[in-house]
Amino acid sequence: MDSLPDLAAIEAMDEADPLRIFRSRFALPHGVIYLDGNSLGAASHDVFTELKQAMMEEWGNGLIRSWNSAGWFQLPLELGDRIGRLIGAAPSQTVVADSTSINIYKALHAALAMRPDRSVIVAEGDSFPTDLYMAEGVTSTRPGTALRLEGRDADDIESLIDDQTAAVLVNHVNYKTGALRDMAALTRKIHEAGALVIWDLCHSAGALPVGLDGANADFAVGCTYKYLNGGPGAPAFIYAAHRHHTSIVQPLSGWWSHARPFAFEQGFAEGDGIKRFLCGTPPVLSLRALKGALGIWDEVDLNMLRQKSIALSDLFIRLVEAKCGQYGVVLDTTRDSEKRGSQVSFTHDNGYEVMQALIERGVIGDFRAPSTLRFGFTPLYVSYRDVWQAAGVLEDILSSGSWQEARFAVRSAVT
Amino acid sequence: MDSLPDLAAIEAMDEADPLRIFRSRFALPHGVIYLDGNSLGAASHDVFTELKQAMMEEWGNGLIRSWNSAGWFQLPLELGDRIGRLIGAAPSQTVVADSTSINIYKALHAALAMRPDRSVIVAEGDSFPTDLYMAEGVTSTRPGTALRLEGRDADDIESLIDDQTAAVLVNHVNYKTGALRDMAALTRKIHEAGALVIWDLCHSAGALPVGLDGANADFAVGCTYKYLNGGPGAPAFIYAAHRHHTSIVQPLSGWWSHARPFAFEQGFAEGDGIKRFLCGTPPVLSLRALKGALGIWDEVDLNMLRQKSIALSDLFIRLVEAKCGQYGVVLDTTRDSEKRGSQVSFTHDNGYEVMQALIERGVIGDFRAPSTLRFGFTPLYVSYRDVWQAAGVLEDILSSGSWQEARFAVRSAVT
Repeated sequence: MDSLPDLAAIEAMDEADPLRIFRSRFALPHGVIYLDGNSLGAASHDVFTELKQAMMEEWGNGLIRSWNSAGWFQLPLELGDRIGRLIGAAPSQTVVADSTSINIYKALHAALAMRPDRSVIVAEGDSFPTDLYMAEGVTSTRPGTALRLEGRDADDIESLIDDQTAAVLVNHVNYKTGALRDMAALTRKIHEAGALVIWDLCHSAGALPVGLDGANADFAVGCTYKYLNGGPGAPAFIYAAHRHHTSIVQPLSGWWSHARPFAFEQGFAEGDGIKRFLCGTPPVLSLRALKGALGIWDEVDLNMLRQKSIALSDLFIRLVEAKCGQYGVVLDTTRDSEKRGSQVSFTHDNGYEVMQALIERGVIGDFRAPSTLRFGFTPLYVSYRDVWQAAGVLEDILSSGSWQEARFAVRSAVT
Repeated sequence: MDSLPDLAAIEAMDEADPLRIFRSRFALPHGVIYLDGNSLGAASHDVFTELKQAMMEEWGNGLIRSWNSAGWFQLPLELGDRIGRLIGAAPSQTVVADSTSINIYKALHAALAMRPDRSVIVAEGDSFPTDLYMAEGVTSTRPGTALRLEGRDADDIESLIDDQTAAVLVNHVNYKTGALRDMAALTRKIHEAGALVIWDLCHSAGALPVGLDGANADFAVGCTYKYLNGGPGAPAFIYAAHRHHTSIVQPLSGWWSHARPFAFEQGFAEGDGIKRFLCGTPPVLSLRALKGALGIWDEVDLNMLRQKSIALSDLFIRLVEAKCGQYGVVLDTTRDSEKRGSQVSFTHDNGYEVMQALIERGVIGDFRAPSTLRFGFTPLYVSYRDVWQAAGVLEDILSSGSWQEARFAVRSAVT
């Protein structure tokens, strides 16, 4: 095993990093090493500028006129297409709307309606839970349908997929362990069984290159407030492959999905294409913040991003195992970087207290019950030096036992 | 008939107006008379201050910690209670979430589940259309249920309500004509038939005192971007009477409605009370703007608001009929101020062109096909002088025929 890099070597890595130019675009607080961008992405100066423009000029001065003059009406489709580039979706297949939970509901209903002779939704038992709660909600409105879970009904999701399976709802990257699924291979198997796939991209959009069109995916959903840095609770996105557009039927049929919303007709008539996944009037200020955040992404090479993400994660694993392994910290993420998202988890028996102590020292990751320390690596604003320092602070907390005395005033627990 | 007031009389009315102190709190553009606050409310300086705080301090510096330290988690319930005061709802019965469309979907499902032996939703044919589209969406997921419409299936909504009626979805104020329903009387009749009522308050919340608890209402929904001034597309609210809280079941069962969202459990378990109407992660920046807007409302006496609203509307009707009646402008709102919201509509054969000409002259109302000129009166920032001037501009446009030459570059068409 190679010896651990010293600070000079770490600084050389930052010097050579082609993505280092982006760090100054973010409004990071002093004294903080932020390894929780997989939960809430950092704010950029561009977002501040655009949101000020949106609230003072567009809303304040433009008032109602800005729906047209500032392009507010177009935001769901415009932002959808900009996200499309990051998830391998050609234009007009992605739209920004509502929350991930609600978009899962729409996509599951659409998929079930396209497979009327089938009755089963397959999902992962260790899915981010809201996916399962929404699937339960869907089955509650479709008598005779059922939910099968990997980990509960079988060890392996593939063995659950059969000729009764209408839809498979699957996370591209697991929120807790960071495990990355092979999108193309699993999509192929799902299609071979005659089922449709819905990919949850919450933990992969903006974390690594995603290839929805290339994998022949059917539907996808995801949030924009993690790696995409769209702001707390920023509206989510939903994707449907072009070939399905004329088949989309979903019950959240609000006026924004209508063919002629301003004709104020009494009866519902579906709009064209991906618009069918819109519903009500969207929160424009949050959309404008997201628009500000997506500007940076237009400049980012996703292959460079992935390369740095792997390098940061590998470095963190290596440093933590070498410095902290003796204190009961156990890796809970695969070492195989090809099968990992942009996050690394460790378990520790006192994980909660250790994470609180880290946060008090300015190293922000998060804790997932019962014992997971979770760290996200966002290559646009995390440096190699951050990783080196974070591992050092963790070593210090564990070797000194200071986590036992930490004042646990600060709590941080959002996905 | 009294003679029309002159400018001195109008100015005296503004002088005597106890609500005139609020106008300077809003960031209204120069040269604009804004009579479209019933479509998109105006921005206040308080909102700008709070939104800057939310984006730069809370998100930018606080990052993930602000979910707790800045109270983001509490916003849906906190803002719900603040709106509750304006709609006659005691605390813990109102929550801010999603869009009006989606909240209608939740409320209708909950009501139908509470009346399992009944199958009919009754609504108004001239309802704001998204209400009907969502009701169609609900019936599509509940085989055997049907939608009956006033204006299509009968002339009078009351004659449609029978022992098969599970829920009546009704607008408190009609979006187009401004007609105001008697909430207490209609709720009583609906209950006498054994059905439940869902009030749509989009055009009454913040426009006049609303008494949900006093009327013994069951459910209500509404938007916050009109009279409440929460910002474009600001999140909506939903109300359920306390007595129904343990009965609420609705299929948009996302993790925010779970009893223990951070236990990350596999199965859904309903949370307590009005939380059952939450779903996914809310758009925090839009919620923070709304919080900024609600501060002013804490200072407003709703009876004074109503009094001024009626005075403004009455004055506008009187001035327009006297000055413009000869040019084909016909009142399309009741003269009975007790049966009117805070808006006034006129029809004109060239309504679209006339409204474009008004907007070009800085008088912003809106147009609803085929021939409605709609004007909203928001007593917090509209003065008697505004009303006097607006009527004068309309007279000028009609008497000169200048609307025929107007350049129709500016379009304004959002409810």
